[in-house]
Amino acid sequence: MKVLAILYKGGQSAKEEPRLLGTIENKLGLEEWLKGLGHELVVLAGGTSDDLYPRCRYLTRDLIEKAKNLKLCITAGVGSDHVDLNAAVDHRIQVLEVSGSNVVSVAEHVVMSILLLVRNFVPAHEMIERGDWQVSDIARNAFDLEGKVVGTIGAGRIGYRVLQRLKPFDCKELLYYDYAPLPPAAAEAVGARKVDDLKEFVSQCDVVTVNCPLHEGTRGLVNAELLKHFKKGAWLVNTARGAICDKDDVAAAVKSGQLNGYAGDVWNVQPAPRDHVWRTVKNPLGAGNGMVPHYSGTTLDAQARYAAGTRSILENYLNGKPQEAQNIIVGLGKYETKAYGQR
Amino acid sequence: MKVLAILYKGGQSAKEEPRLLGTIENKLGLEEWLKGLGHELVVLAGGTSDDLYPRCRYLTRDLIEKAKNLKLCITAGVGSDHVDLNAAVDHRIQVLEVSGSNVVSVAEHVVMSILLLVRNFVPAHEMIERGDWQVSDIARNAFDLEGKVVGTIGAGRIGYRVLQRLKPFDCKELLYYDYAPLPPAAAEAVGARKVDDLKEFVSQCDVVTVNCPLHEGTRGLVNAELLKHFKKGAWLVNTARGAICDKDDVAAAVKSGQLNGYAGDVWNVQPAPRDHVWRTVKNPLGAGNGMVPHYSGTTLDAQARYAAGTRSILENYLNGKPQEAQNIIVGLGKYETKAYGQR
Repeated sequence: MKVLAILYKGGQSAKEEPRLLGTIENKLGLEEWLKGLGHELVVLAGGTSDDLYPRCRYLTRDLIEKAKNLKLCITAGVGSDHVDLNAAVDHRIQVLEVSGSNVVSVAEHVVMSILLLVRNFVPAHEMIERGDWQVSDIARNAFDLEGKVVGTIGAGRIGYRVLQRLKPFDCKELLYYDYAPLPPAAAEAVGARKVDDLKEFVSQCDVVTVNCPLHEGTRGLVNAELLKHFKKGAWLVNTARGAICDKDDVAAAVKSGQLNGYAGDVWNVQPAPRDHVWRTVKNPLGAGNGMVPHYSGTTLDAQARYAAGTRSILENYLNGKPQEAQNIIVGLGKYETKAYGQR
Repeated sequence: MKVLAILYKGGQSAKEEPRLLGTIENKLGLEEWLKGLGHELVVLAGGTSDDLYPRCRYLTRDLIEKAKNLKLCITAGVGSDHVDLNAAVDHRIQVLEVSGSNVVSVAEHVVMSILLLVRNFVPAHEMIERGDWQVSDIARNAFDLEGKVVGTIGAGRIGYRVLQRLKPFDCKELLYYDYAPLPPAAAEAVGARKVDDLKEFVSQCDVVTVNCPLHEGTRGLVNAELLKHFKKGAWLVNTARGAICDKDDVAAAVKSGQLNGYAGDVWNVQPAPRDHVWRTVKNPLGAGNGMVPHYSGTTLDAQARYAAGTRSILENYLNGKPQEAQNIIVGLGKYETKAYGQR
């Protein structure tokens, strides 16, 4: 068998830190094992500033039709929107994820991002770094999370973990918007209420966090029209996929103060161009930007989990064993999940 | 009566934002009310870069002995180490705090600071701001909070709220060090274990957070000797008082990598001098600094609470009503709390 791994370039960091498993240098820790079994591992760079990125990362219908021997696509992590899933169904190519490998990592990043926007951390740290000290310039836009209404678009594996972590912060209310209601016991455990209408949902939230997959139904979901229905000065956190939020509409909302801030690690194009507006957009008080590169799900702890999970999926495949149900996005010729907008 | 309020200069921000109540401009919202009762409010600047700060903020024995009419000291917030409490006892001056007015604000800041150190947020955001994108340079020092051991020095009103908020993060263990054990039900609710020996305590922690008052017994508590007992690469968060951590010893530990990072909002001198080492110290990977000016307890939500609480203490005093027990640090001629190191 030939296994193709599209990973990101780790450079010097990957040479110095062997726990950076998801890099072309450290190859998910799979090389020796596959070689020992007589298989071949081919590694391509699909991340950072490498120009292969746009060519290889997206598995389009066209590419799938050309890949006559392709049997199995594994996402070393969670989020399979880089594969044309309908084409995979048509060509009986299985698509699997390492479900759960980085959901906690992302949920933690969401809670961190909410706190640092609401509490106005970035301008406060920058003030210290540049040698200043003007408490009131920071405090005038710093709030507590306690007493605020926080809502998640999507209450799946990540969104629900966000709600669990927010529970003891004594928010005024926790809300969620999703096609499927949470099981009653799960909803009660976190004290979350479902709102069925998206505009009504965002109009009640001080903080909105996006935790749904990207598909035809969610692309550009947070746009100028929806942003009009947000509370004035709400905060928005998106660690799901950049394209769920309209780049220019979100930037305009931050600039005008309609949003008090925007944070997250996902971008409509990755790596983000140097002049991407989300890198530098600020609210009228010069604050409200908590953006980072796409790394929330790729902490060293997550890399250990998704490398092990990728190996386990490969082992099952090579040994003809069944895959764990929760990892299957597309089975042989059919969807096994509704999470990507399928009915 | 003459009421002296030592507040911080809010400048333009305070003029534009009336909710900045803790400023010399907005006077805790007390001026009209006191005037209406025939009392006089005098306001002095005790914060920011004003040169009155070192002169007025600290109520020394010398000042207390000169202040023949002084009856009552109120901290508009929590933390009365700026008063010579022994002198207040000797001179039958009551010292009160607005207990609980900003404990949630500070506890939230602690959890935020832990997350942003462990997850390596600051270098990630700075990378985005300057136009770069190198995921592995960030990921190599980014971890999940899940599975880590977190310990608080002090499990009082703030420390306990930190433990409550950390509970759903599935830390490997939550520890605390305190002179008093938590009530069994409270300890069980957060799943926290008391460690009696401080060196043993820090040696078990991936993250140490300082949530105890500053007094003779805690000044310089975290120094080179104690830092030797920390796990290599642990993170330290201090939002209690700057002087509990030795400035140069902590900086040296970050610089060497013995600490992976240091964050918090309190400084041994406030405002921090422009060249204070905590402003810019970094770990060997150029990360690990989450410092901000002293504002965690002075969010707009906290300012509303401590302004209301200050007024309530004044009302009780003026009307001869008893004070709420939890607000009294020094009663008439005696300590009413052990929190400042008294036995």
